[in-house]
Amino acid sequence: MSDSFVLVINSGSSSLKFAVIDSQSGEAVLSGLGECFGLADARMSWKFNGQKSEIAVEGEENHHKLAIGKLVGLTEELGLASNIVAIGHRIVHGGEKFTKTVRIDEAVTAEIEKLADLAPLHNPAGAIGIRAAIEAFPALPQFAVFDTAFHQTMPEKAFTGAIASELYSEYGIRRYGFHGTSHYFVSREAAKMLNKPVEESSFISVHLGNGASVCAISNGNSVDTSMGFTPLSGLMMGTRCGDLDPGIIEFLMKKGWSQEKVFETLNKKSGFLGVSGITSDARGVLEAMEDGHEGAKLAFEVFTYRVAKYIGSYLIPLDHLDAVIFTGGIGENSLPIRREIMRNLKLLGFVEDEKGNEAARFGAAGIIGNSELLGAVALVVPTNEEFVIAQQSVELL
Amino acid sequence: MSDSFVLVINSGSSSLKFAVIDSQSGEAVLSGLGECFGLADARMSWKFNGQKSEIAVEGEENHHKLAIGKLVGLTEELGLASNIVAIGHRIVHGGEKFTKTVRIDEAVTAEIEKLADLAPLHNPAGAIGIRAAIEAFPALPQFAVFDTAFHQTMPEKAFTGAIASELYSEYGIRRYGFHGTSHYFVSREAAKMLNKPVEESSFISVHLGNGASVCAISNGNSVDTSMGFTPLSGLMMGTRCGDLDPGIIEFLMKKGWSQEKVFETLNKKSGFLGVSGITSDARGVLEAMEDGHEGAKLAFEVFTYRVAKYIGSYLIPLDHLDAVIFTGGIGENSLPIRREIMRNLKLLGFVEDEKGNEAARFGAAGIIGNSELLGAVALVVPTNEEFVIAQQSVELL
Repeated sequence: MSDSFVLVINSGSSSLKFAVIDSQSGEAVLSGLGECFGLADARMSWKFNGQKSEIAVEGEENHHKLAIGKLVGLTEELGLASNIVAIGHRIVHGGEKFTKTVRIDEAVTAEIEKLADLAPLHNPAGAIGIRAAIEAFPALPQFAVFDTAFHQTMPEKAFTGAIASELYSEYGIRRYGFHGTSHYFVSREAAKMLNKPVEESSFISVHLGNGASVCAISNGNSVDTSMGFTPLSGLMMGTRCGDLDPGIIEFLMKKGWSQEKVFETLNKKSGFLGVSGITSDARGVLEAMEDGHEGAKLAFEVFTYRVAKYIGSYLIPLDHLDAVIFTGGIGENSLPIRREIMRNLKLLGFVEDEKGNEAARFGAAGIIGNSELLGAVALVVPTNEEFVIAQQSVELL
Repeated sequence: MSDSFVLVINSGSSSLKFAVIDSQSGEAVLSGLGECFGLADARMSWKFNGQKSEIAVEGEENHHKLAIGKLVGLTEELGLASNIVAIGHRIVHGGEKFTKTVRIDEAVTAEIEKLADLAPLHNPAGAIGIRAAIEAFPALPQFAVFDTAFHQTMPEKAFTGAIASELYSEYGIRRYGFHGTSHYFVSREAAKMLNKPVEESSFISVHLGNGASVCAISNGNSVDTSMGFTPLSGLMMGTRCGDLDPGIIEFLMKKGWSQEKVFETLNKKSGFLGVSGITSDARGVLEAMEDGHEGAKLAFEVFTYRVAKYIGSYLIPLDHLDAVIFTGGIGENSLPIRREIMRNLKLLGFVEDEKGNEAARFGAAGIIGNSELLGAVALVVPTNEEFVIAQQSVELL
């Protein structure tokens, strides 16, 4: 354990995730969650030394500010405060402005607020968290780590929509990509596992969680990714549709569906939930499938088939392939989903390493398959976005 | 030349393409176009024995009917009438009902009209053409050949949208695919060129025209295709956006864009036109690119990159690959576009055969590249949808 801790803050519209991360080991010394902000039962809970605690967040207004204020006392009580050297904020959208982690000043905060246009739910909440943290911890340097920043290396042909160019020049509509911190982290970990310099490595990183995205990473840089202007596109997700024929939206509107109903359906009622008809949770889908549920089986097949197609397509921007990397809640823990994806990759030469695939569960990294044809392996690499936020904050100190 | 001619009719909302096709050679003995239907200057033109003619279509109403009526006299005058054994109608949408070419009776026509919900511009026009042709040529058997039929072999995991399943059960929203007649034709031609039984062949067919789609064809059957519920999805096209983050539509509507403006932009002002800023025509884009036009260069790069990514993804549903087939106006005639797509396929082992690629222009078939890695070749195969319509009509006689 080092003595450089970073308080990592992820401020959502009605929630606040926080953790005190050891910047050398990545260990979460303290981790917690504030939730139900804006409601009467706003509360905070945390875990420290294996013990869980919870308190109410009382007060009429700005629960983000109240909660972050409470962190001052909490970190002091727990004896962590003196080792915290920085605060790292996870910010969803950095637009084209932020290509890497930056130290926060007023200009940075204002820019994050300006980018609210591109992330209307997330960026304003992120800025509220920043302002509250500066007030609560005025002595600590603060850093912003962006979900989009890693993808700013994408070439123009990958980030340009096949749409009227005014949509880009006037509104900034292009592919930004998300999950950048995760794709960054697992590509570095994979390079270490394979004993390859990151600068010569070539990966397809598959982050499968409730949100999901694929990223092609060449020599350490993102060169394409499946989420686009918003996190709705790309892979099928827990409740999100991913890539969709835009003509479907026009059709539904002509049928009298309101804009709200259409996008609520695509964001909240599609994906695993929509196809299976029962649950947005991959584990629930797998269980139902074992019980013979048709919708669950179809959701499993559509999901794994689409992931495999993305992997096939992301060979295009790469000059070779070292590994396909599975990460995220589903990628790290779902053996049957990884197995089915590898089966779908048979023409690319992938063969499952059954023992490896079975061993790689619940946070264990390892090789789970390989392709002689491509000279590549398939890996599981547990992600740790908070570790990246802590590391990059300390690096910039 | 055989003595079995088929009158092929392609009835659009304000136009009518027609041709008399030799059902054995595929040659168009007569070909013509009716256009500006519904307007004062409605007219018909045709080409016969290398000579062009044009007449006005005069009359207040139903120019489709008037034009098809004129075909009776025209085919008699030209001495073709006695050899015409059938009429084949190209119909855009066959829904899930029509999985192959069928002989037309009242039930079929009514079903095509019922499917207008799925193809509101095309199917009603197709039905008008059918009814007019039955009236004008009461003695001839008539057949309907559907753009969607070839794709009805797609497995459920390929045709199911990652959306709420009610959208399928209530509205029929799923992947149907289009250009089926073209993908069917070139896959049969490619099998002949490679001296392989169609039932053991495996192709990725790339139809690049003003509309464009990719199709994975396993043992002669479509197993996936890039157009979906509508022809707006999939590849970037002349003016269509192809695959799009659905969140972009919500964003624009929140900016105050009307539904009409959004979908007109995506259908008519995107694709080559939108990205290049100058033209929807691939030739124009290539010329401008040679003159150093930045937008044209970007359009070329985005288009070819996306085609290559689709080819990569369509390795997934195949168990081997015999050939990537280029067809359609751009696929048959644009050497630089084929070259750039093959460059993008380098990790899949494709290498251009420069001489072959240069030889395959203006309607010539040939091998233009190969991949030792996959044991596959790249081919140009000129398409001939009217030939398929004629052949299948005669087969069903």
